[in-house]
Amino acid sequence: MIDLRSDTVTRPSPGMLAAMTSAPTGDDVYAEDPTVTELEQTVAGLLGHEAGLFTVSGSLANILGVRALAAPGTEVLCEAGAHVARAELGAHAAISGITTRTWSAPGGQIDLDQIRALVAPDLGPYFVTTAAVSVENTHNFGGGTIQTGYDALADELDVLGLPLHLDGARLWNASVASGVPVSAYASRAAAASVCLSKGLGAPIGSVLVGSAGLIQEARVWRKRLGAGWRQAGVLAAAGLYALEHNVERLAEDHAHARLIAEILADAAPGSVKPDQVETNIVVADLSGVGKSVAEVIAGAKAEGVLIGGVGATQLRLVTHLDASTADCRQAAETVARLLR
Amino acid sequence: MIDLRSDTVTRPSPGMLAAMTSAPTGDDVYAEDPTVTELEQTVAGLLGHEAGLFTVSGSLANILGVRALAAPGTEVLCEAGAHVARAELGAHAAISGITTRTWSAPGGQIDLDQIRALVAPDLGPYFVTTAAVSVENTHNFGGGTIQTGYDALADELDVLGLPLHLDGARLWNASVASGVPVSAYASRAAAASVCLSKGLGAPIGSVLVGSAGLIQEARVWRKRLGAGWRQAGVLAAAGLYALEHNVERLAEDHAHARLIAEILADAAPGSVKPDQVETNIVVADLSGVGKSVAEVIAGAKAEGVLIGGVGATQLRLVTHLDASTADCRQAAETVARLLR
Amino acid sequence: MIDLRSDTVTRPSPGMLAAMTSAPTGDDVYAEDPTVTELEQTVAGLLGHEAGLFTVSGSLANILGVRALAAPGTEVLCEAGAHVARAELGAHAAISGITTRTWSAPGGQIDLDQIRALVAPDLGPYFVTTAAVSVENTHNFGGGTIQTGYDALADELDVLGLPLHLDGARLWNASVASGVPVSAYASRAAAASVCLSKGLGAPIGSVLVGSAGLIQEARVWRKRLGAGWRQAGVLAAAGLYALEHNVERLAEDHAHARLIAEILADAAPGSVKPDQVETNIVVADLSGVGKSVAEVIAGAKAEGVLIGGVGATQLRLVTHLDASTADCRQAAETVARLLR
Amino acid sequence: MIDLRSDTVTRPSPGMLAAMTSAPTGDDVYAEDPTVTELEQTVAGLLGHEAGLFTVSGSLANILGVRALAAPGTEVLCEAGAHVARAELGAHAAISGITTRTWSAPGGQIDLDQIRALVAPDLGPYFVTTAAVSVENTHNFGGGTIQTGYDALADELDVLGLPLHLDGARLWNASVASGVPVSAYASRAAAASVCLSKGLGAPIGSVLVGSAGLIQEARVWRKRLGAGWRQAGVLAAAGLYALEHNVERLAEDHAHARLIAEILADAAPGSVKPDQVETNIVVADLSGVGKSVAEVIAGAKAEGVLIGGVGATQLRLVTHLDASTADCRQAAETVARLLR
Repeated sequence: MIDLRSDTVTRPSPGMLAAMTSAPTGDDVYAEDPTVTELEQTVAGLLGHEAGLFTVSGSLANILGVRALAAPGTEVLCEAGAHVARAELGAHAAISGITTRTWSAPGGQIDLDQIRALVAPDLGPYFVTTAAVSVENTHNFGGGTIQTGYDALADELDVLGLPLHLDGARLWNASVASGVPVSAYASRAAAASVCLSKGLGAPIGSVLVGSAGLIQEARVWRKRLGAGWRQAGVLAAAGLYALEHNVERLAEDHAHARLIAEILADAAPGSVKPDQVETNIVVADLSGVGKSVAEVIAGAKAEGVLIGGVGATQLRLVTHLDASTADCRQAAETVARLLR
Repeated sequence: MIDLRSDTVTRPSPGMLAAMTSAPTGDDVYAEDPTVTELEQTVAGLLGHEAGLFTVSGSLANILGVRALAAPGTEVLCEAGAHVARAELGAHAAISGITTRTWSAPGGQIDLDQIRALVAPDLGPYFVTTAAVSVENTHNFGGGTIQTGYDALADELDVLGLPLHLDGARLWNASVASGVPVSAYASRAAAASVCLSKGLGAPIGSVLVGSAGLIQEARVWRKRLGAGWRQAGVLAAAGLYALEHNVERLAEDHAHARLIAEILADAAPGSVKPDQVETNIVVADLSGVGKSVAEVIAGAKAEGVLIGGVGATQLRLVTHLDASTADCRQAAETVARLLR
Repeated sequence: MIDLRSDTVTRPSPGMLAAMTSAPTGDDVYAEDPTVTELEQTVAGLLGHEAGLFTVSGSLANILGVRALAAPGTEVLCEAGAHVARAELGAHAAISGITTRTWSAPGGQIDLDQIRALVAPDLGPYFVTTAAVSVENTHNFGGGTIQTGYDALADELDVLGLPLHLDGARLWNASVASGVPVSAYASRAAAASVCLSKGLGAPIGSVLVGSAGLIQEARVWRKRLGAGWRQAGVLAAAGLYALEHNVERLAEDHAHARLIAEILADAAPGSVKPDQVETNIVVADLSGVGKSVAEVIAGAKAEGVLIGGVGATQLRLVTHLDASTADCRQAAETVARLLR
Repeated sequence: MIDLRSDTVTRPSPGMLAAMTSAPTGDDVYAEDPTVTELEQTVAGLLGHEAGLFTVSGSLANILGVRALAAPGTEVLCEAGAHVARAELGAHAAISGITTRTWSAPGGQIDLDQIRALVAPDLGPYFVTTAAVSVENTHNFGGGTIQTGYDALADELDVLGLPLHLDGARLWNASVASGVPVSAYASRAAAASVCLSKGLGAPIGSVLVGSAGLIQEARVWRKRLGAGWRQAGVLAAAGLYALEHNVERLAEDHAHARLIAEILADAAPGSVKPDQVETNIVVADLSGVGKSVAEVIAGAKAEGVLIGGVGATQLRLVTHLDASTADCRQAAETVARLLR
């Protein structure tokens, strides 16, 4: 099977497995695993932050980061399709008591006018207080889009004295595609998460970065949420390996995504705009195609190609290091036949 | 002072006080207060529902109603300026673990296209589940507006199998202004709240209505939230009095609001559109006026007129049964002078 | 019917009702109700604290007071039969995320040895942190008992740097029976609640006292829990009336309880120890009597006497200002017949 | 260093690492990792349950298991020193809104009389409802004790219709020491957790078992808590290896613990009772020894031996597969010198 449902499906490579088994380990609940510590410091350094915390998922890194910026009963603003709003099962409310108000924009982009209309940092004791704004970059359900108004938003929040939360699950993709260093993005945020198990190919893990105090608090809450782990160095080693070997090659995934988009656009004009495919995610809208999402997913699966859906009318194909150029071309041609 | 900050500032009239002191009472924590029971049954009947629960505030009625429709970790959709989203201090997340995604529309109106883009009742275990849609009618921060797409939304939700929550704090105003019976609105909702201490002039209290089972669950959670009360019949009597004497007269408040709007529009053209003042709330936008909200509020106070602000550029004036025609005219003329 | 189920069942007297209708009122959500403010300041003064907050119930005063002393994920220690542990429906966990560990003692008394074995204020990031100890005085389900080790516990907590929470729903009873001023009890606690609608006979309301900062935070959370109220002066007036007229007379309730206990002890030796009836609550243990709790409650009801049960084997009778000496004697004789 | 602070400090052996790198993997968030599935089914089978869920920690398995048995606002009873009460940072309250009442017993044992006095499954809407009883077997802070009244409690709960929760982090130790199969313990519980990273030596992971429906719900909440993981097969493989190779050998750890206890009892009579050391944990009470816990811990560390403390007066030494007989003897003799 060629699996383009997500870039989370990659399996650890032989080199990565070798790194995992040779890494020194310790009990990370006691903060004594040297490989975990090395990973946390490495990522914090790359992102321009003081400290880091290795977490079992990107969702957890977001839960801990958002909670550190917002108290129970306050709100965080985000785009309505952001991962924190759509794909974390209401965790910020259910666990942390934090509510959201949302704006909606094409590609999941920042919309400063809408944010200005929503933001309420200091309206007194009768109104909900905006505690932070959260931005996902690249924006998954927006189609892997790079946030264009990122610095302008960060400037605006500086003026308001409000912190920015960055969900950087695919910040590596944003950086490789845009040429902007990850630190230039992440250093604008008070808390930022990056994922090691999506495009980078590690089996498990994300890293939250922030100030030393923020990370200390996040470490206690990680334990409270039952997500402290013991000899996590075996996983951290995979993350370190991924950082060394798998960042620059994301450009290949982006080229593969563009290739897929062109093949689909050729087969079903209007369903995809190839020049809007900025990173490793292709979203194809079937509204004008006359086929249902379920039908195309099932048809592709029957031909050995796994793809996903987003909402009622959209297909999603995600490229990654376990999908070669030939795989991507074959998958695209299979889907193209089904769309015609 | 003439106080137009809110319709919550009314004081109980002599007739209402007499009703309060002559009502039979009992221990409502044991559901044994006959006046409370009479109020709950009266309101449930008026609104076309099976049962009612008398609560200390409209916020509490909303907290209990929303919780009955949505489990922790699910979401409720609402307009970004709705009372449940803006003015309940994140209670639905902080207490009930329920998150929100929001749309924004002029006048706080229902926007079916935006709701369709947000709603996600059944996307499986990786996405937040939409459990309900909440609508405020009239919409306070939208300017006392009557929701025009109410029935169309209710129809759409019926198809989706999703419940509607109605925040009817000022449903009496909507009904008097539109001529639509309150039951025609409320019976479309699985849970609805109405307030007795805003336009109706009771000192304290709202009523939540729904099915007998929903109200039974809400009663337990009311106790859990520390809001069970004992001889609440003294307050329920005020509510019954208000229902008998103070509903139809809301038309006067609406006329007063229109009068104020006309005076302000005359003084500061464009700040208010009188024909958009549908009920008892006037919102004046000072963007083009060259005066700040704080300045005008302070100036009016110095002349014996209390008014409020909404956000950075808007004044809010609310009419009610303790403000006569003369009071309203005087207040409007005072503000008009300050705007010129 | 003679109703001895609880001292919460009293109805406001004509004098109290007159006070309620003549009191000045305002909008207490804006902290503008002069009668509420007077009540809050009066009670704070009586209890030796800086500030007070009028709440709709004793449970709410406890929820707000405990939350102000303990953060989510910390614990409060209390006796296993305390109102906060047994009779508030898990509110401290459900709303505030606070957990409890409990000791058990006859009469619900303080047990310093057990508390010392439980308390854990500073064991580091792997263990739950004890944030406060909560004591109920008098202790309702312990049989209206006055806490004898109160000052010793307060001294011990001072050494540990831990705050004491006082659930003083019936602190008036403790004070009248012991001769110790309420301020001598309450000033040892960082947060204390007292109830106006139990022995004191007001229809609704408790007061939480503490520092100005604690009360300010509690006020915001009262709003968040949906328990802000508008013209609450009508109820506060009842509280002020009760403080003036109904405190000293609690001694009569205590004498009534002793009378009941003697009659029951005579009928069923061993079921009650009259000299252990310290205030207005009589608990009779039916273990050795050969009648079930349900049977006796039903039998008494058939003869016009309402009484309650506590757990599987205990009856509870509570005296109050609506039960005269004759009422109490008649009730006791009715129950005595059923026990023989 | 010889590290006897906990049995969590073990590092994966070469054989285990080889198993980890050769296991097939998949995306476990999609329930597609074959090694994870094999582990879950294997453990469920061993414990006599329908289904299993692999979790990042024992705390998480407990959080998910308890939540599945108890709704927000209900209570779970447990011993005051149980891991769920003391060492999970209030998670059950903070995350799930569940409260606890506790009994205290020597060795952390079940005390049926105390439990009978606490349990309240059906006292109506004014009292907290007991939803489950949780037992830790072996009991960590009780000194690795095997619960002797386990079946009697399970029988009693069956009569009451209340579910039992089993925290079986060290159930393997209980089984090896007592000869009772793990299934005989676990099948009495509605939800049970076992740990793979304590005595069994896997780097990370526990398994929760229960009915298929309970596990399905727990899987959704695992995701909501941010603890879904991707290619977790690399860790599940370690768990499977541990089950095959490291269960029976726990008897050696138990013999080592007894050896340590004898050496300490010889040096400081009364501090330890060797015949009460049932499994792999030795707790030494320094009350009568005249040395402080901190002093002994520091002294041992200076000589290359790491040990822990429990509370103010107790040392804790835990044996495990990375501590040989010689290591344990050397550690014990080091501590013995410090106690003399």
